[in-house]
Order: sequence, then structure tokens, then C-alpha cells
Amino acid sequence: MQISEAGLIAALQKQFNRKLPVGVIGIGDDCAVMPQDNNKSLLVTTDLLIEGTHFLRDKISAKDLGYKAIAVNLSDIAAMGGVPKYAFVSAALPKDISDKWIEEFIQGMDTILTEHQVLLLGGDTAKSGQDIFINVAIVGEAETQKIKYRSAAKAGDIICVTGNLGDAKAGLECILRDCHGEKFLLQQHLRPQPQIEEGLFLAAYPQTHAMMDISDGINLDLQRLQQASNCGVKINLEKLPISKNLSRFAEKFNLNPIEFAAIGGEDYCLLVTIDADAFKKIAQDFQQKFKCELIVIGEITSEKEFKYFLHGKAQKLSLKSFSHFHEE
Amino acid sequence: MQISEAGLIAALQKQFNRKLPVGVIGIGDDCAVMPQDNNKSLLVTTDLLIEGTHFLRDKISAKDLGYKAIAVNLSDIAAMGGVPKYAFVSAALPKDISDKWIEEFIQGMDTILTEHQVLLLGGDTAKSGQDIFINVAIVGEAETQKIKYRSAAKAGDIICVTGNLGDAKAGLECILRDCHGEKFLLQQHLRPQPQIEEGLFLAAYPQTHAMMDISDGINLDLQRLQQASNCGVKINLEKLPISKNLSRFAEKFNLNPIEFAAIGGEDYCLLVTIDADAFKKIAQDFQQKFKCELIVIGEITSEKEFKYFLHGKAQKLSLKSFSHFHEE
Repeated sequence: MQISEAGLIAALQKQFNRKLPVGVIGIGDDCAVMPQDNNKSLLVTTDLLIEGTHFLRDKISAKDLGYKAIAVNLSDIAAMGGVPKYAFVSAALPKDISDKWIEEFIQGMDTILTEHQVLLLGGDTAKSGQDIFINVAIVGEAETQKIKYRSAAKAGDIICVTGNLGDAKAGLECILRDCHGEKFLLQQHLRPQPQIEEGLFLAAYPQTHAMMDISDGINLDLQRLQQASNCGVKINLEKLPISKNLSRFAEKFNLNPIEFAAIGGEDYCLLVTIDADAFKKIAQDFQQKFKCELIVIGEITSEKEFKYFLHGKAQKLSLKSFSHFHEE
Repeated sequence: MQISEAGLIAALQKQFNRKLPVGVIGIGDDCAVMPQDNNKSLLVTTDLLIEGTHFLRDKISAKDLGYKAIAVNLSDIAAMGGVPKYAFVSAALPKDISDKWIEEFIQGMDTILTEHQVLLLGGDTAKSGQDIFINVAIVGEAETQKIKYRSAAKAGDIICVTGNLGDAKAGLECILRDCHGEKFLLQQHLRPQPQIEEGLFLAAYPQTHAMMDISDGINLDLQRLQQASNCGVKINLEKLPISKNLSRFAEKFNLNPIEFAAIGGEDYCLLVTIDADAFKKIAQDFQQKFKCELIVIGEITSEKEFKYFLHGKAQKLSLKSFSHFHEE
């Protein structure tokens, strides 16, 4: 396969988004949107988790894998301002998987489904040759008028995020380096928390323009938002929110925490652009409700360029972004 | 993995079907059912197609595989009396897949999606190590009152099917035996036709009690219907509809066509139980509309036993039924 994941998605968009009825949103955002006749819309998202590409079997417990497989999909519903309702799970398992593993995988799914009152209603099971393949599809609902798209950013918007960046990537590094003391970072990698309440809260404001979840790192995800919104982006790297745990971890291994924050994937917090005039009020409301900050990291510009600054000086991030498809 | 597919599904049912709200149907039928507030229900089905388990890459073209991956899922919507609306496709592909293969796979999907006016709205793509993994999810709609379940068969019902049986299995045999002259049988295996119009038509009659599609052969699928409906089944083997093509093929290779009809999977026509008093009228209407017969193969009994007869004599079918999970 020579085509990249981005190229494949572009080809699919070209083929299938041509003749969609008004209001129906297909390939290209966190979820597909299907308006119903009661001012509500259905949201559907689906994500693959593949052994060797998305996880290593001996580095994640079956419970954590079950939890995470659901969590990353719920995050896509959160990103549109929706409420997840129903889950469908397909699993192809090789024959060396034990019944205990299956039981714990189901327990992990059940934990997060129960936390978010999502009902598992179906799926499929099959034998695979060697690797574990999991596909989760989530059906959610949203008020049609409140759904947020990644294509709606406007010049002058404040760009902010709803949580620390880079912790999940640091957690993955901990696993790969076998340093299991970093419980907090490991937890961020193994049990991401979909920000459904936060998504609903932010979606209620008309001055919240664009929203998406951060699955592949802000460097890549903001480029997607920029492209969809046909705008420019200016990011102040020193503003990227870095946890004390990540700072300590980076110092210990002589790594740059800003790089982790910018390119590390699987953060699963929200990336939001908000009308500058309304930002202060929304940020105050957010702080009051969630007891944590809406963190400003930059602004949307009209220049159609993507620019990084560090303490006012233009920077170039040359590291390859997180992409499952390209890695070899 | 020691647990069978049936055992796994039973465990999932036990875990997740416990607390479903009234009207919501989870694991166990062809589709999940989610009632909406306008007398309609959403239907969702999802099916895996895995290289080596469900198909062999060098025995099916990318176009046929794309067509079939969608077709088998549409058939599940047909089986409940619904109309398919939206498709979501996840594909994990190994790196030796060519861009041309991907293009043709998309074409195959597009052909059947266009035939049935189903919109492809999303999915996911990823790299796999060796094998092709495809997961399709379909969202459909049905009038809540008209949805048919496999659990609704009643003693005295006529059991019938909407098409010939065993052709798809014979098509698979042709492929495995490299006898490519049997175009008709090959086509039944490679391009199954989901009976959406037939399903809608039959679902409109309150006297149509149980309905499901035949994916794993009537021997296995009727046992599922029997179990779900807590009833008995009596099948007259000489009544199983066998095409001229299958007869000729079976004669040529000294095979028993009745076995193909009874245990051969992937027929994807409908298995229906109908109130005996209403059967004649419904069969006439069906004949008039579709120019083909509603074929009687047996009856539902109150005995809670599964019995085969051949020209009035009790028979035992000892062959192992089609099951992807068990095959080794």
C-alpha cells in the first residue's frame, strides 16, 4: 500500500461525500452526523485497535484494553458535543487468547460503559490468525444546533485545550522503557478519560466555534482543524500545559517535554476554538463547573499558515507526528 | 481460547442484556433495536470479514469483497424488516495490498451501496501485520411495530425460505476446486443479494411471526430460531429448494445436494415463520410481487425438538454445521 492514511481518507471523502443530503455529515470529522426529525442528530464514530499497531499485548492488561477501546470512541462523541448511547464491539481473537483474558476484556469495557451509561447492544466475534483486532462503533445523540465541527474555526478565535498534553505519550514511553513507577503517566496512557461533560458544556455556547478531540497530538490534529477551517494557526509552545509528572519524567530521561506535548498522541482532551470576545466568560464558567482551567495555547489567524512560537520567537517543529498508518 | 463463539455470545448477553430499557434489544438477534420517539426504531448490525477465516485473498477479487462485505450486513437489516440507511467501514490492511486493490474494494462497496441507496458516512483505516480485516456497521430504520424477531415463532407456524439453499456453499466449493465454469454458483457465493424488499414486504404482515437471514445454513440458523422461540422444528428435507445448478454440480462431484442446502452457509435469503391460516394469502401476495415462491420447508411444533424428515421418515443430519469460529 503506497497511499497514506490521509490520502486514503481523502479518496473515500471524494467518493462518498459527493451526494450527501443537506445536514448529513460524512467522512472527515470525529463523528458522522445524521439529523433526525426532532431537532436531534445521531452521531456515529468507529475506531480500530490493532495489536502491534495500536497496542502490544504484553504491555497492556485485557481490562485496560477493554476500557481504552471504548474510551477512545466515547472521546469522538464528546468532541462533537454529543452524548454516547450505544456501543457495538467486534473482536477477532487468535486462539492463544485465554478465556480469562476475554472475561477481563469484557470487564474493562463494562466498567467504562457503566461509568458513562452506555449500553453495549451488539458486535461480532471471529477467529484471527495471529493478532487481536478490535473495532468499536458508538452511536450517540446531540442537539443538532449545538454540534461542533472542526471546520468552524474563525480568524481571531482563541485556541484552547481542556487538559494537560503529552502525558499519555510519556506513559507509553514508560511502558516501552519498563519504568513502571510512573503510575500517573501510565494511567493517562492506559485509561484515557473521554471528556463528555466538558464537550457538552462547551458545545452549549454558540461562541464555541470549532471542537475536536486530541487523538494524534495537537501538532497533527491542529493541522487537520486548520485545513478543515481553511484558516491559520499560531501556537505559543511555552503555553502548552505540561503536568509535573511529565516535567519530572522528561528531566529524568533528558527529553523535551514540549515535544511530548506537541506531538504526543492519545491525549483525548478537547481542542477548542472560541470567539475572543466570549472567551473570558466561558473560561470562568468552565473553571467554576469543572474546577480546572480552559488552557489558552494560541489563536486562529487569517494567514492560512501554521506557526509555532516559543516566547515570541518563531520555531520549527521538525519531528514526525504520531501516525499509526505511517509507522514502520 | 477454549470458549466457542456461541458460548462467548451467551456470556456477552448475560453481561450486557441485563439492564436494557424496555423496547431496546441488544445482543442475540440479527440487529440491535433502539426505539426512537416517532414510532420508528434504529437498527444496527455489524459484521467482521477476516482473511483466512471468511475469505481467501487470492480467491476473491477486491471488488467482490467490497460488495460482499456490505451485502452480508444489509442482509441483517433485511432480516428484521428494516431499511438500511448508513454504512461505516473499518479496514486494517497489510502493506502488500496495492492501491489498485484499495480502489477496486471501494468500487465494489460503492456499487452495492448505490444499488440500495445506502450512504457510507465513516469508518477507520489502519495497518495490519499480515491479514486483511474488515468490519462493517450498518445503521437502518424500521417501523417499531413491524420489526420481526427470531424469538417470535409459534407452534403451528409454516417455516419457509425466500430462495434456493446451498448455492453459495457450492460456489465456495467451486472456488476451492478451481472449477470456474460454474458462473451462477460462483456469483451466489461472491455477490449475495440482500433481500431488503422481501424483508420489508413480509414484515408488513402481523401474521409473519419470526424472521432471520440465513448466514450459517438453515441447520444452524433454525436451531438458533428454535432456541430463541423456545419451540420445536420439523423440517422436510425433500422440500429444501435446490437450484438446477446445484443439482448438476452435486451430480458431477458425487455430492449430496440436500446436505449443501441444509448446512451450507451464506445463503442470505430469509427464513420466515408464518401463521398457518394466513400463509396461503401471504404466499400468493409474495408470488405476485416478486415473481418467485415463498418455499415451505417445514413447520414449528410445540415439542421443543428439532426433527428432520425425508419423505416422511425421521433422519439424522450428523455433519458439522458451518461455523467460522470452530473451523481449524
